[in-house]
Amino acid sequence: MTFEDKLEALANLTVRVGNNLQTGQRLYIRAPLETAPFVRLVARAAYQAGAKFVEVLWADDALMRERLRHSSEANLTEVSEVYFGAREAVVAQGDAYLSILADDPAALEAEDGERVGTVMRAIGARGRPSLQAFGAGAVNWSIVANAVPAWAERIFPDLEPAAALEKLWNAIFTCSRVDQPDPIAAWTAHLDALEGRRSLLNTFSLTALEFTAPGTNLHVGLPALHRWEGGSGRTKSGIRYVPNIPTEEVFTCPDRNNVNGTARASKPLSYSGKVIEGIEMTFEGGRVTHASATRNEDALHKLLETDDGARYLGEVALVASSSPVAQTGLLFQETLFDENAACHIALGRAYQFTLNGGLEMDTPSFMAAGGNDSQIHVDWMIGTPDMTVTGIQKDGSRVALLEAGEWVF
Amino acid sequence: MTFEDKLEALANLTVRVGNNLQTGQRLYIRAPLETAPFVRLVARAAYQAGAKFVEVLWADDALMRERLRHSSEANLTEVSEVYFGAREAVVAQGDAYLSILADDPAALEAEDGERVGTVMRAIGARGRPSLQAFGAGAVNWSIVANAVPAWAERIFPDLEPAAALEKLWNAIFTCSRVDQPDPIAAWTAHLDALEGRRSLLNTFSLTALEFTAPGTNLHVGLPALHRWEGGSGRTKSGIRYVPNIPTEEVFTCPDRNNVNGTARASKPLSYSGKVIEGIEMTFEGGRVTHASATRNEDALHKLLETDDGARYLGEVALVASSSPVAQTGLLFQETLFDENAACHIALGRAYQFTLNGGLEMDTPSFMAAGGNDSQIHVDWMIGTPDMTVTGIQKDGSRVALLEAGEWVF
Repeated sequence: MTFEDKLEALANLTVRVGNNLQTGQRLYIRAPLETAPFVRLVARAAYQAGAKFVEVLWADDALMRERLRHSSEANLTEVSEVYFGAREAVVAQGDAYLSILADDPAALEAEDGERVGTVMRAIGARGRPSLQAFGAGAVNWSIVANAVPAWAERIFPDLEPAAALEKLWNAIFTCSRVDQPDPIAAWTAHLDALEGRRSLLNTFSLTALEFTAPGTNLHVGLPALHRWEGGSGRTKSGIRYVPNIPTEEVFTCPDRNNVNGTARASKPLSYSGKVIEGIEMTFEGGRVTHASATRNEDALHKLLETDDGARYLGEVALVASSSPVAQTGLLFQETLFDENAACHIALGRAYQFTLNGGLEMDTPSFMAAGGNDSQIHVDWMIGTPDMTVTGIQKDGSRVALLEAGEWVF
Repeated sequence: MTFEDKLEALANLTVRVGNNLQTGQRLYIRAPLETAPFVRLVARAAYQAGAKFVEVLWADDALMRERLRHSSEANLTEVSEVYFGAREAVVAQGDAYLSILADDPAALEAEDGERVGTVMRAIGARGRPSLQAFGAGAVNWSIVANAVPAWAERIFPDLEPAAALEKLWNAIFTCSRVDQPDPIAAWTAHLDALEGRRSLLNTFSLTALEFTAPGTNLHVGLPALHRWEGGSGRTKSGIRYVPNIPTEEVFTCPDRNNVNGTARASKPLSYSGKVIEGIEMTFEGGRVTHASATRNEDALHKLLETDDGARYLGEVALVASSSPVAQTGLLFQETLFDENAACHIALGRAYQFTLNGGLEMDTPSFMAAGGNDSQIHVDWMIGTPDMTVTGIQKDGSRVALLEAGEWVF
């Protein structure tokens, strides 16, 4: 297969499996300018699948930098009504939505952190209603990755730019299974396997998970109503879609107030344009009572200070060390990939669909049932090849879930 | 001055003179993807001028081609609600609007003409309310040009691509007066001169214009309420702005039903992705009764068949042959430039502000006063270096306006 063949296969997979675009649906695509060649292939695949219209909401880090450097302070709380209005239209109209990931994780690292924070908080607050609607099954949405030079050079600093880009593209193609003879069939089999494991986990009726690895000794309580998810999602209207390409995780809702112990990051965390390294946290009664990092610790503290819920967990996820993403041996510095290489936890908002009946709950009820609420949702990796994860059942019996990083059930 | 200096000067001129952006205004920019470097400079200049926010509405011909080739026929009447919704927000909010011109005039020439027509008619109909509001002084809007390879290679087919691009940029800089030591001062002087001539023309109280050149012998009646415009415009809220960079024309409203004679194009016309050459038309009682072209005549006939008003004139404009645009000796194949190199007439809608009191008229009143109504407004060039233009006054006396292509008043 040529590069073009694989890129076209990725575009088709995205439309047919990621969004599972229905005839007559509009497709909205959020994409950085640099991804235009891939966007056009996605648009072609969408029209071939019967799209009513393809709208592209282009993003540009360089434009954001001009704003951060030259806007008055007071105007930094303005947001793009074109973008957020479009997201609300997607929800109202029941359209499909695709996000193309191709950011340089350090794009804003040189900018004034206070100003970046002001902009990000305004964006977070304005985007929240549509984000919640996406989480509540209003939209068949997906995220897929596109290699770009800034990202490739960060992962492969010792390679020539063209070689780095090619290597990142190949890693994306492998992780997304589009270098296989029939990518759509490969995804059907993969989703069946993930969904089988998620069903088993739901039958275990666990009350807690225990994570053990060097630097990590963490007890994560699970709410009575917790529900394991992973692989595909389903809209309220019944469309099955795959939110993330790639995806290798099964995940659920932790009990907001019942997390205790210590956790050590197994990979750096890229947040708001900064790469935070060497994270360690202590939890007491669900709350982060101590947090340190060996690089960009101030960014970590800002993250935790976003709001009250930013100090509590909203997701716990299991991933085997043998996942194709882990097998690449790469640190992608992008959650979409790195979260599929290792077990992880997320600070901030829990997904309402990870509690049974959660989509029908208002926020106080959701929190009373163990869910967390916040403006943020930030995954960070704790899984290592020597991690053990044990499930605790209602009667106190223990179920081995992962040993030495691998599934054992 | 380096290229970067001139590009930055063009961005500053656009914001300060073109839009005359006011502190606290939002700026919406419509721009092809390829113009991103210039867009970012415009955004910088806008934030430095106190913009509240800069929204960019990106356009992409390649995406349009995917749609034209792969969408179902029925869905070709869909339009971008993101784009047109944004234009309506600009009108409702009193924001500033900038259009960056950088199209390949032949971008859609290889596409199915019927399908292109279907898309263009839908776009024209959907965009009409905001276009009218722009014409009625709701918005301080401007258009400026950005050189791109496809456009440059079309104008300079014999040059290497890089040399062609450089030559086109230099022509844009010269025509836009940004290679002068103080471009903003140069524009102040230029606008004063244009506006002086427009004032004189208004004092003449003309009833008709006569155009004479080889192949052209055209009598264009002027309505009693006609008003000469040119140079800057002014919003209802009082902001002075310059709709076109460059601009060299003074123009007014012809009498819809009082145009007689023949006209021959002095330049090709680029419309809807096709370059129409060798146009000749005959007018009787205002209406085009015969139209021919030596290339793409079918596109010309389609244009005339858009609606009833497409066969009547909506603008008549005077330009001296010595204008800096004419002096480049180039055929830009873009109206923004070519209309500033030669006298021209426009098929289709008349601007309501070119009749005294026109902005307050409804369409029937506007048409009763001599104005024309249509979905389209398409300029085409009739001016040549040997053209004579004579004004006829109420008492029948004749005023020489242009002789051998030059101003004589």
